[in-house]
Amino acid sequence: MSALSEKRFLTLAPPTEEDARGDQRRLLDALREDFGEVALPLPLVRRLYPLCRKAEWRVTVTLVWNGKNWQVTDLEPGDTTAWHYGLAADLGSTSVTMELVDLRSGAVVARESMYNRQTALGSDVLTRIFYAKDQPEHLEELRLAAVETLDELMGRLTEASGVEVSRCPVLVLAGNTVMTHFLLGLDGFPLFLSPYAPVAAEPGFLTGAELGLHLAGLVYLFPARANYMGGDIISGLVATGVARSEGIRLFFDIGTNGELVAGCRDFLLSGAGAAGPALEGGVIRTGMCAGPGAVEHVDIRGEAVRLQVIGGEKIRGVCGSGIVDLLAELYLEGIIDFRGTFRPEASRRVTTVEGEPAYRYAEAEETAEGRPLYFYQSDIQEFLATKAAAYTMVEYMLKAIGMTFDDVEKFYVAGAFGAYIRTASAVTIGLYPDLPEEKVSCVGNSSLEGARVLLLDREKLAEAEGIVARMDYIQYGAIPDFVDSMSAARAIPHLDTARYPSVMEWKARRQSGE
Amino acid sequence: MSALSEKRFLTLAPPTEEDARGDQRRLLDALREDFGEVALPLPLVRRLYPLCRKAEWRVTVTLVWNGKNWQVTDLEPGDTTAWHYGLAADLGSTSVTMELVDLRSGAVVARESMYNRQTALGSDVLTRIFYAKDQPEHLEELRLAAVETLDELMGRLTEASGVEVSRCPVLVLAGNTVMTHFLLGLDGFPLFLSPYAPVAAEPGFLTGAELGLHLAGLVYLFPARANYMGGDIISGLVATGVARSEGIRLFFDIGTNGELVAGCRDFLLSGAGAAGPALEGGVIRTGMCAGPGAVEHVDIRGEAVRLQVIGGEKIRGVCGSGIVDLLAELYLEGIIDFRGTFRPEASRRVTTVEGEPAYRYAEAEETAEGRPLYFYQSDIQEFLATKAAAYTMVEYMLKAIGMTFDDVEKFYVAGAFGAYIRTASAVTIGLYPDLPEEKVSCVGNSSLEGARVLLLDREKLAEAEGIVARMDYIQYGAIPDFVDSMSAARAIPHLDTARYPSVMEWKARRQSGE
Repeated sequence: MSALSEKRFLTLAPPTEEDARGDQRRLLDALREDFGEVALPLPLVRRLYPLCRKAEWRVTVTLVWNGKNWQVTDLEPGDTTAWHYGLAADLGSTSVTMELVDLRSGAVVARESMYNRQTALGSDVLTRIFYAKDQPEHLEELRLAAVETLDELMGRLTEASGVEVSRCPVLVLAGNTVMTHFLLGLDGFPLFLSPYAPVAAEPGFLTGAELGLHLAGLVYLFPARANYMGGDIISGLVATGVARSEGIRLFFDIGTNGELVAGCRDFLLSGAGAAGPALEGGVIRTGMCAGPGAVEHVDIRGEAVRLQVIGGEKIRGVCGSGIVDLLAELYLEGIIDFRGTFRPEASRRVTTVEGEPAYRYAEAEETAEGRPLYFYQSDIQEFLATKAAAYTMVEYMLKAIGMTFDDVEKFYVAGAFGAYIRTASAVTIGLYPDLPEEKVSCVGNSSLEGARVLLLDREKLAEAEGIVARMDYIQYGAIPDFVDSMSAARAIPHLDTARYPSVMEWKARRQSGE
Repeated sequence: MSALSEKRFLTLAPPTEEDARGDQRRLLDALREDFGEVALPLPLVRRLYPLCRKAEWRVTVTLVWNGKNWQVTDLEPGDTTAWHYGLAADLGSTSVTMELVDLRSGAVVARESMYNRQTALGSDVLTRIFYAKDQPEHLEELRLAAVETLDELMGRLTEASGVEVSRCPVLVLAGNTVMTHFLLGLDGFPLFLSPYAPVAAEPGFLTGAELGLHLAGLVYLFPARANYMGGDIISGLVATGVARSEGIRLFFDIGTNGELVAGCRDFLLSGAGAAGPALEGGVIRTGMCAGPGAVEHVDIRGEAVRLQVIGGEKIRGVCGSGIVDLLAELYLEGIIDFRGTFRPEASRRVTTVEGEPAYRYAEAEETAEGRPLYFYQSDIQEFLATKAAAYTMVEYMLKAIGMTFDDVEKFYVAGAFGAYIRTASAVTIGLYPDLPEEKVSCVGNSSLEGARVLLLDREKLAEAEGIVARMDYIQYGAIPDFVDSMSAARAIPHLDTARYPSVMEWKARRQSGE
């Protein structure tokens, strides 16, 4: 275990006339062999007296490695090495998750999530950027909302665990570039306008006090490579080991935006694009965020539809993973063709609603509003445009590095969307490439995981900084034929069906009634 | 000029799609060649936007070298390199002096002095130590008094110079160990009790904000070697170059305590002892601190006495430099013998007052109280004990390093006492060794001077730290025969007159009427 923080119980030699070194020097000398010349900030210098004397020179020092040197963050009488906890957090624009980690065992002691309080000031990132733009008092509101969110999570973790979390020596925090800017009290507007240069991409270590947090220790913020390639992605790369693998790995964080990284220990290439809110259920007429009443999984066999609803409640709509299933099942059952066009002859559930073809996926008696729910032709086209963009991002990047899908050792799908989606369905509709299932790994909140990984292994600090330093960046927006390349990817699974042999085989088996 | 602070006007490349580095990285990259990896604290990161853009990427950066790396302390639009000032101060227990220095030319722009506001809480250091002992609120009073004193001096310097002093990037501060403890908010009690270990002897660099000062920049506090060998002495050594000289130099700060250092670039030996308040006029019955109405110089020829009075006022008493003159003149005129005993036959001014022999040095009509002023036999004995202690400290130290006075290249006398004393008189009474006048140098407030020297030459930072690291320390109090050694030094100039050939010659010439 080489965590970002260490504790050390010291028995110091009491001062004598022959050795009248100051308490400060006495402590620094005792730490030098193991930790080099450590930093001891003034508030801790002030604690030296009478603490050392009262403790009869038996004290415990808590230190944090900041990438350059060790810094003392706490000084306590006696041996307190049994208490050694740290924090890892993912600061998302919608929700924020924090973990309390036992730094001796590496075990997660407690985990808490809540909505980012900034949502009250703007539901999406863009609204918040404009809210804060050139308005320091609004920016301060956003900053405080982030700080309060983190403080509240610490409070909840304290309650849940009985561990006094505010005493933790270190919090490792991963967030996208805008979230990081707001937490630092930086205007996010330059991230919105070309050339999208951040104000600060490498905040590094700050004290809890500097950030206004109720935390005695230090806070490490993951660096960003570019505006869309934020600390959350860098953290995810640390979690998945993309930057240190021998074989080529793909890391894809799919959400409102899609962030993609391809690489190994020899190179790293990244790119980002607007994957579109369709994936989160935003554009689909009966779409909704994952939550109670959302259809998260769908199975169709002929006229029979089986829905899995979050919370087991009456149906309110369909979320991202449900949409992917719905599309995949409609395609496999032959209810839509490869262009996504309804084939009314294939199912009695295909009707015309308000002049538009639609598929009735939920009956009136199953729904919260007592009305049937439909999946519309236009919903399908919207979603296919989005999945085409996502697929083409991956395709284009592999082409840029002269590779094909066969060269890919591992395909990581990050984010909440990736965590709940059925890999088979995503492959079926051509959102994911046709890779063997064992090569596809849904890593969920890899941003949080990377923060925990770094908290428990300080070597990862250099890895995170190395990723930022060596990662190349594709500006998809600047590629002239990018939109054209997407056309073929709008088909299900793809106009070039040879790319999806497993889907073709599976479909043939379903059609033949196997 | 390699001052502790540098300013640099930069023309940064504006961000483009090809080069979308963050503002923070852009600035750090531009500084790397000349300054290495500099530190940019959060408050300055917050100033980057929109400052850089509004200034069209032409900005001036102010940096301070902290001994390990450069730290940015200010960021301004446009070219402001013409404004570059720093501060040097001596934080004395009685008075505090601060200088505003133009870092481009090295010129002292303004200098201000005032009483340390701590005097209201305790006239001497010991009273203050006991006032603060185990009473955090009293310690805080003392800390604030020091802070307010420094703040007021900065205000006065601003008024005197028109330079906005609070914007200075750096203040170099030299103070004794107790003063430094109080400024840091540290209890000074351990400095009072054996083994006299300080709480913090090497405070190094702190921000003005950490100390509570109205100063945007950093504060460097000179390190201490031991409780009595404080930052003021280390600063004086830097000013006089004792630690880098080829020949042996002596540095003697005489006041209530005497601090002595002997050395050269090869070794440094230090010691301290209670020189006694006699030197500051404290024990002498008509003694007083240097100030209006104090006799500062005395000449005697037969029955004629010529007095030089501070402020040209009516006489109130005699200060340290006047006492040294008085003793020297009484001895040279044969009015006292080598033991300091009055010879009534030598002057009509020697009378008996309240049963004790005394010399009338001021007539009733000259004094503020309209009564004659006397120098008593007991005053003389008191003072001789003090001068014997001071001389013996020097003698003992030279013996410890196997040297004699002939080996001494330079004898520096520091402190206000040394600045006003006549070297010839001090040699005559045997307070100073009998060195050629050009070898004796009264360096006045060398603590302030060393602060200015370091402010203007950052190489001196390593010198100051090197002095602390390599200086050996004699505990005079622990030397068993120290008091015995003093007996011979109680004589005027010394029982061994061979040590004072110039005094013997001078006296003979005076006696023979030359």
